[in-house]
Amino acid sequence: MVVIITGAEEKSAQRRAAGLLARAGIVAPQDELEQIEVADFGLGELEQSGVQILTLVDTEKIAVKVLVLFPYQTEPEHRHPPLGHYPGKEETIRCQWGELYLYTPGEPTAEPLASPPAHRKHTYTVWPEHLLRSGDQVTLQPNAPHWFQGGPEGAVIWGFSTKAVGVADMFTDPDVRRETVVVGE
Amino acid sequence: MVVIITGAEEKSAQRRAAGLLARAGIVAPQDELEQIEVADFGLGELEQSGVQILTLVDTEKIAVKVLVLFPYQTEPEHRHPPLGHYPGKEETIRCQWGELYLYTPGEPTAEPLASPPAHRKHTYTVWPEHLLRSGDQVTLQPNAPHWFQGGPEGAVIWGFSTKAVGVADMFTDPDVRRETVVVGE
Repeated sequence: MVVIITGAEEKSAQRRAAGLLARAGIVAPQDELEQIEVADFGLGELEQSGVQILTLVDTEKIAVKVLVLFPYQTEPEHRHPPLGHYPGKEETIRCQWGELYLYTPGEPTAEPLASPPAHRKHTYTVWPEHLLRSGDQVTLQPNAPHWFQGGPEGAVIWGFSTKAVGVADMFTDPDVRRETVVVGE
Repeated sequence: MVVIITGAEEKSAQRRAAGLLARAGIVAPQDELEQIEVADFGLGELEQSGVQILTLVDTEKIAVKVLVLFPYQTEPEHRHPPLGHYPGKEETIRCQWGELYLYTPGEPTAEPLASPPAHRKHTYTVWPEHLLRSGDQVTLQPNAPHWFQGGPEGAVIWGFSTKAVGVADMFTDPDVRRETVVVGE
């Protein structure tokens, strides 16, 4: 599968994400805002499956990211597996603004608030729900599958974690490609 | 030296810190706000030497804290030394709100903006200045001495770091005691 979004689509998503960051009270210099990563996971349906990522810290030891989700936009189910001596990324998700529906392993929630894109629902396997509003957080252990969706107005969330190794992330949906390729204007 | 603040002083500082957190756009549930640590470093001069700490994440691997400084309040010079196999805390300080004057090793700034309490000035040894406003950040390597002071309105700053081992912190001022003791109402 070839993964393509256009430069115009990327810029538009960056600008929209910057607007939500400002609403959420996250101040970032222009050079950081221009580096916002627009991830469509190679699925070509950014509004449904995707996330916008502002990386604040990314060292050999820790990573701090602010994730912006548009209304009902979903980050597909994935886990952060062990890698050699590294046990995998431990991650705390904290909601700064909006509402987030987060799903982690355990007893499924009977009537979950989120619905992932219908044609991909079979690739979502964990269904216990955490509803996160401003100031709520959940810590995920390494290698625990999880996925999340923004609420009606979207969501701005913090990801505080040990070292991020994006290429190591394992997605349940075999169609996902982590590296978004941006082509043309 | 016996280190004492009263319960009323602690509550008052917590409430004032909670007010600055709200101004800074940091939403935290009531139970977190009630856990804000008021650190006077055993110096008995909280307005001059001290910091208020909201801990969001504190695992075996990472720590995320929001530090609140009142106007011109100073966190005394300290470093996070190695401990056994642990190389010491690596820490990124990012300003969320207000102004922060941060000092780290290197060539001294000729006319620094901050002045630590005059009677303790001899315990401040690093003088290169970083002026941080909303969205500015500096990453400190393990064991690097540093100190900081809030600006005219105070400051609300993030501390993103590897594992925090508070009792291991080394302060330049021999009068500092890290554990604040709260006594009475």
